[in-house]
Amino acid sequence: MDQTLKETLLGSIRTIPDYPKPGILFRDITTLLGNAKAFRRAVDELVHPYAGMKVDQIAGIEARGFILGGAVAHQLSAGFVPIRKKGKLPYDTVHVTYSLEYGVDEMEMHKDAITSGQKVILVDDLIATGGTAEGAVKLLRGMGADIIAACFVIDLPDLGGRKKLEDLGVTVRTLVEFEGH
Amino acid sequence: MDQTLKETLLGSIRTIPDYPKPGILFRDITTLLGNAKAFRRAVDELVHPYAGMKVDQIAGIEARGFILGGAVAHQLSAGFVPIRKKGKLPYDTVHVTYSLEYGVDEMEMHKDAITSGQKVILVDDLIATGGTAEGAVKLLRGMGADIIAACFVIDLPDLGGRKKLEDLGVTVRTLVEFEGH
Repeated sequence: MDQTLKETLLGSIRTIPDYPKPGILFRDITTLLGNAKAFRRAVDELVHPYAGMKVDQIAGIEARGFILGGAVAHQLSAGFVPIRKKGKLPYDTVHVTYSLEYGVDEMEMHKDAITSGQKVILVDDLIATGGTAEGAVKLLRGMGADIIAACFVIDLPDLGGRKKLEDLGVTVRTLVEFEGH
Repeated sequence: MDQTLKETLLGSIRTIPDYPKPGILFRDITTLLGNAKAFRRAVDELVHPYAGMKVDQIAGIEARGFILGGAVAHQLSAGFVPIRKKGKLPYDTVHVTYSLEYGVDEMEMHKDAITSGQKVILVDDLIATGGTAEGAVKLLRGMGADIIAACFVIDLPDLGGRKKLEDLGVTVRTLVEFEGH
């Protein structure tokens, strides 16, 4: 990836110290999203390996994954499937429990959102410990999805999420990294 | 708008009876989003009046407005600004109280998300009573936004939301309508 693009993206992400708790440097992607050039280039960079490839569905994780995932789906002429927190989807769902830093939570998809064998790209803004993404991968594979890749703008490699997904055999694509957490 | 497109969109929206409560016909847009052709055409139809126009920001309302809004922002080379439920944004915010069917709720934006005078299009999946959209309009105008239009895929005209926004001087663009609620 082009070094100038990497600098544009890194320069457009805001760091908020001590959020959501003391000692955490929160990487705020809203400043990248609100920067028209950075947003456009981030989406274009995420999709370019898949241009011309048959991609059936983009699965986006609520809520920031919806913003990037919607743009990626439109750009690749794919459908978009929302992976939501429990209780937000109106039709019959399948769900999975996933690990958070403390405790567990549940996410779900509509039971007919994916047809077995469909080629799917998972999209979220950031991968940290990978607990949410791992849950999403399990949910998608349980529906028979062929996961082409999991794509994130930001990687926090010290938290091990990328490795967790790669250990599941998932190809991971990220655009920029920050050390620490 | 092309009648075939209207039929494609209407045919891709699932109706769920008695959700979230008895007597309500819930219009489920996830089946449109997951239909690659319908999703692509809905986004293209939303944006085409603004192609070549200078649009600074797309403001999307959490959560389904993020999916469509992200795609619209990318397509128009605009930035994307999330309007979120209270307590979800990491930086300093401005907020507004808005009316729900029963009671009120709050939504917010980052205080630096819009620069005064910026041209903004508001995007959400559906307009019903217009309470949420009216709150978003107040929030955006309070930051000095020049709202070019408010765009929705689905209009439920019997609930009066379109009229409520038009009475505020907002241009409303919708793609399909359903009677009743």
